[in-house]
Amino acid sequence: MLTRMSSLFLRTLREDPADAEVPSHKLLVRAGYVRRVAPGVYSWLPLGLKVLRRIENIVREEMDAMGAQEIQFPALLPREPYEATNRWTEYGPNLFRLKDRKGGDYLLGPTHEELFTLAVKGEYSSYKDYPVILYQIQTKYRDEERPRAGILRGREFLMKDSYSFDLSDEGLSESYARHREAYIKIFGRLGLRYVIVAATSGAMGGSASEEFLAESETGEDTFVRGPGGYAANVEAVTTPAPPAESIEDKPAAVVHHTPDTPTIETLVDFLNAHTDRKFTAADTLKNVLLKTRQPGAEEWELLGVGVPGDREVDMKRLEASLEPAEVALLEDKDFAANPFLVKGYIGPEALQANGVRYLVDPRIVTGTAWVTGADKADHHVVDLVVGRDFTPDGTIEAAEVRAGDPSPDGTGVLEAARGIEIGHIFQLGRKYADAFALDALGPDSKPVRITMGSYGIGVSRLVAAIAEQSHDESGLIWPRSVAPYDVHVVVAGKSAELLEGGEAVAAELEAAGLQVILDDRKASPGVKFADAELIGVPTIVVVGRGLAEGKLEVKDRRTGERSEISREGAAEALAALVRG
Amino acid sequence: MLTRMSSLFLRTLREDPADAEVPSHKLLVRAGYVRRVAPGVYSWLPLGLKVLRRIENIVREEMDAMGAQEIQFPALLPREPYEATNRWTEYGPNLFRLKDRKGGDYLLGPTHEELFTLAVKGEYSSYKDYPVILYQIQTKYRDEERPRAGILRGREFLMKDSYSFDLSDEGLSESYARHREAYIKIFGRLGLRYVIVAATSGAMGGSASEEFLAESETGEDTFVRGPGGYAANVEAVTTPAPPAESIEDKPAAVVHHTPDTPTIETLVDFLNAHTDRKFTAADTLKNVLLKTRQPGAEEWELLGVGVPGDREVDMKRLEASLEPAEVALLEDKDFAANPFLVKGYIGPEALQANGVRYLVDPRIVTGTAWVTGADKADHHVVDLVVGRDFTPDGTIEAAEVRAGDPSPDGTGVLEAARGIEIGHIFQLGRKYADAFALDALGPDSKPVRITMGSYGIGVSRLVAAIAEQSHDESGLIWPRSVAPYDVHVVVAGKSAELLEGGEAVAAELEAAGLQVILDDRKASPGVKFADAELIGVPTIVVVGRGLAEGKLEVKDRRTGERSEISREGAAEALAALVRG
Repeated sequence: MLTRMSSLFLRTLREDPADAEVPSHKLLVRAGYVRRVAPGVYSWLPLGLKVLRRIENIVREEMDAMGAQEIQFPALLPREPYEATNRWTEYGPNLFRLKDRKGGDYLLGPTHEELFTLAVKGEYSSYKDYPVILYQIQTKYRDEERPRAGILRGREFLMKDSYSFDLSDEGLSESYARHREAYIKIFGRLGLRYVIVAATSGAMGGSASEEFLAESETGEDTFVRGPGGYAANVEAVTTPAPPAESIEDKPAAVVHHTPDTPTIETLVDFLNAHTDRKFTAADTLKNVLLKTRQPGAEEWELLGVGVPGDREVDMKRLEASLEPAEVALLEDKDFAANPFLVKGYIGPEALQANGVRYLVDPRIVTGTAWVTGADKADHHVVDLVVGRDFTPDGTIEAAEVRAGDPSPDGTGVLEAARGIEIGHIFQLGRKYADAFALDALGPDSKPVRITMGSYGIGVSRLVAAIAEQSHDESGLIWPRSVAPYDVHVVVAGKSAELLEGGEAVAAELEAAGLQVILDDRKASPGVKFADAELIGVPTIVVVGRGLAEGKLEVKDRRTGERSEISREGAAEALAALVRG
Repeated sequence: MLTRMSSLFLRTLREDPADAEVPSHKLLVRAGYVRRVAPGVYSWLPLGLKVLRRIENIVREEMDAMGAQEIQFPALLPREPYEATNRWTEYGPNLFRLKDRKGGDYLLGPTHEELFTLAVKGEYSSYKDYPVILYQIQTKYRDEERPRAGILRGREFLMKDSYSFDLSDEGLSESYARHREAYIKIFGRLGLRYVIVAATSGAMGGSASEEFLAESETGEDTFVRGPGGYAANVEAVTTPAPPAESIEDKPAAVVHHTPDTPTIETLVDFLNAHTDRKFTAADTLKNVLLKTRQPGAEEWELLGVGVPGDREVDMKRLEASLEPAEVALLEDKDFAANPFLVKGYIGPEALQANGVRYLVDPRIVTGTAWVTGADKADHHVVDLVVGRDFTPDGTIEAAEVRAGDPSPDGTGVLEAARGIEIGHIFQLGRKYADAFALDALGPDSKPVRITMGSYGIGVSRLVAAIAEQSHDESGLIWPRSVAPYDVHVVVAGKSAELLEGGEAVAAELEAAGLQVILDDRKASPGVKFADAELIGVPTIVVVGRGLAEGKLEVKDRRTGERSEISREGAAEALAALVRG
C-alpha cells in the first residue's frame, strides 16, 4: 500500500535530541523512527516499526530454515522457576519484579531459560523426541542501571532467543554450529560488518560462548583481535602465562624505606634514584583490595587482586571473572575495620596472614620477583619472589588488555576495537536441565540428562546497530534488506502536473511489487530532499522538471550518484535495481 | 515450509486439563496450542502461535486498508501520564504496578489512551495534520480478579487498539463508522457469528459505544435483542419509563403491621390474606442499601436503590451505572452505625430523612403507588405514592433485565443470549484531549480541541472465541482463514511406500502454495486420525491403501464428509478446494 507523506504520522526534527550522544540515536529520533517514553523505553513510529518488522522477518526466516520451531512465552512470569535456579536473586536490581493483586511474586522476563526448559520437560519424555530447537521473538525487560543510546541499550527490547535441547555433547556442538551458521546468514542479509569473538557466558553459566559484535566506534563492547584470526571480547581474553622461572638465583627480598612514593611512578623514580638497578612499572606488583558477595549472601568477603603495576584493573574483566558474585571497591570504613590493610602499601604478606583470598594476574608466575607494598607506611619490598616469599591463592583475569599485548594464539600482537553486541551463542550445558531434572528416557530405559544451548539476537538493537554503521551527515542510509521502503518518490514542485506524475510513477512502482513512499506534501523541494536524505530509503526518485521531457532523476542515497532514466519503463528499471 | 509431526513440538493430551471448564480452553490445551504458565498467563506453542499470527494479520490488513497507521508503544509505562488522567488510581487492583531500581513508579499498560494522545500531541500541531487514525497490535496486561477460561480472559493478552483523532464531532462519527465497517470485515473474514450491541463505555469515559460479541453460550457477557434489531449489552439496556400517573386519585398511604414477612413473597401472601386487594411482587418496592466510594476517596457514602420487588438488583448493571465509583454491599457494622436502617423494612422516608442518596428504577414514576418498608420492624406501608409521599433523587439502571421485557425500541419483547466480547468501538470525545490539552491550531489561528475515538479488538481472545464457536466432540474445527495449516496429510500406515507417498503428496501441495502438516509419525492410523480431528485443520488428506490404485481420501473436518480423489492432479484439486 502506497504511503503518502502528506498523511504519514511523521514529523522530522531539525535538531538533535538533547539526550542523544550516538549517531543512531540522534538520527532515529530526528527521522521520526522512535520516540522516548521513559529512560530506556521507546515507542516505534510507523517508519521504525517497518524496519523492526523487516529485521524480525529475516531473523524468523533463517531460524525457520534451520529447523527451529517458533513458540512464544509470556513476559509476565511467576517467581518460582527463577527461584529454582537462584536467578530471582542473582539477577539483582536488573530484574523488574512486581506483585499481583493476591501478593504473588512475578517478574518481567529478562531471558527465558527456565521457561524453555520447563516447556520441553512438559511435552517431551523419550530420547526419540530429541534433538529440538525452539525459539521466540519476544519483548524482554531488564532494569539497566544506565540505559543509553536510545534503543541500543533499552529496558524494554525485542529479542530472538532460542534454545537447543540435545541428548549428548556432540549434539549440542552440532546445534551450536547450526546457530552459528544461521547467525552468519542473518547478519549477512542485514548488511552488517561484524566480528565473531570469544566471550564469557555471563550470569547464564556454561562453556563455549561467542559473541557477534557489529563493528562500531560507539559500541559498548571492546574486543581485541590478532593477526592469526583470534578475536575476543575483552572480558574473555585469557592472558598467556610466561614460563615459570627458577627461584634459586633470585636475590633475597629487601624492605626499603620509600618516603613520598604514593604512586607507581614515584615509586619507580625513587628506586631508580636510590638503588643501582633500573626498575619500570612492570616490575611492580599493585595490590587492589575489593570485596565480593555471593548472590543471596548477606556478608561481603575481602579479596586481594595483584596485577603488574603498569596495568590498571579492568573492572568489567574483574566482574566477569567473579560472576555471579557482586564486586565493590573498599570504602574507608572497610579499611578502618581491617587495620592490617595499610592503604598504598598493601603486600601479599598481610593479606595472607589475615586470611584474605589473594588472586593474581596470570603473568605473576613462580620465580618472578616483584616490588610491592611492605604492609607498613612508606615502605616497599623489592625482590619478593613468587613461590619463595608468597604463594597466591590462584590467578584471575582482571588486568586491562591493551593493544600490543601478545595474542593468545601466538600469532602476533592484539589490536583493539569497539563493537555492539548483536548476537550471542553459547553452550549452556546441563545447568538448567539439572535445575529442573530434564531427562529423556533412553533406549535402555535409563534417564539421559539433556544438554542445552542458548542463542540470542537483539532484534530491536539491530535497528540501531545498522543505523550506527550506515549513515552520513545528512541522515540514515538503510540497506535494501531492511529499508522501510524500496523507493522514495519526491515530487519536486507544487504543480498539478508534477503531483499527478508522482502519483502515477508511485502507482507503477507499486504495481511492480515495490514498497513506495511518495512525498506529495506542499513543501519546498529543499525540505523534501532533506527529509528524503534523513529518512534514508536507498533509492530516491525525483519527479521534477524533466518529467515534461519524459525523464526522472534517480539518486542513490548511499553514493549520492544521480542519473536520469526514461519515464517510460521506469518501473521495470527500478524494480531491477531494487532486486539487484 | 512443510511441518512434519515427527519433529513438531507438539504432544496432544487425551484428558481435559483439570482447570478447564469451557470447550475452547479444554481443546486448545489438549491439542497443544497453548500451555498455562500462571493464572491467566499462557505460552503459545507452534500451532497456537500460527493461528494467533493469522488472526493478527487479518486484523492488520483491514486496519491498513482503512488507512490506519501502525505504531507500537511499550508495555512498560511511567506513572505520570496515567496520574494526569487519574487512571493510575481509578484502575484499582486491575493495574499491574511496579517500581524500577531508582524507585520510579511504572505500570504495565492495560490500555494506551494516554500514550496515543501524547504521541499525537508530540508530532502534530496544525489542523492540516488531522484527521489521523493510529493503531498498535500489542501485548497488554490486566490483573484480573478472576482470570478464566484459558486465553479467553487472561492477564497478559494481545490486543489491537486504535485511536482516531478528529477536529470535529462529525469527523469522529466518520472515524467511528469506518472502524465499524472494518470490524465487520475482520470478523466476517474470521468466520465468526457475532452481534453488535449497544454498550456502556466502562472506565474510559465517552459517549457512543458498541460491542462486538461473538455468540457463545459460555460467554461472560449477557446481551438482549429485540425483534426490530435492537441489541444491547445487558449493562447498556435502558429501561423504558412508563407514563407518569395522576396522584389525585390514589388512596392515602397506610402502615400495616406485617409480622413474619421477611421476604417479598411472604409479604405479598400476607397482604393478599389480610386485605381485600390483590397484590403481586411487582407492586412492592424493594430498597437495597449499598455504599459507594469515588476513586481516590477515603470515605464510603451510603446509597439506597429502589427496584420493583419482582426483580433482583443486577450488580454488573449497578456497577456500570455508578462507574468509576466502587460499590459494595453494606456489612453488619454499617447497619450498626446507622440505626435508622431497619434491615428488611427500609423505606424511602428514613433514607431521605437521614440524607442518604436514593435512586430508583425508571419504572418507579410519579403517581405510581408502592408497598414498601415502613422503617420499623414488622411493618410495611401500602400505597406510598411517588411525587406525593416521596421523591427519589433520580433514577438508576440497576434492576435485572429479563427475557420478555419490552424492547426499548418498542418493537416487541427482548430475548437474552450470551456472548464473548471480541471488539469494542466508542467515541471517547475530549476526555483525554482535555487532560493533555491536545489542540490543533485552526485555520483562524485559534486552538481547536481534538476529539477522539477508541477501538479495541482482543486478538488473542479471538483464538478462543473462534474455538468456542467452531468445534465438536472430537476437537477443533478451524475456519480456513485462520487454520494453522491448509491441509493435514495423514500417512495411514507404516510402510515405506505410504511414507514416500505422503511425502510426495505433501511436497506437491506445498508447491501448489498450500500450508501443509504431514503426519509422518510411526503411530497407528487410529492415533493419527484422532490427532487430526483434535488439531482441526479443515481438510484432511489420507494417504492409505488407495494409494496403490492412485487414490487419496479427502475428509472435510467440519462436515465429516469423505470423498476419494485421484492421486494425479490432487494438488490442483485441493488448492482449488482450499481457495474456495
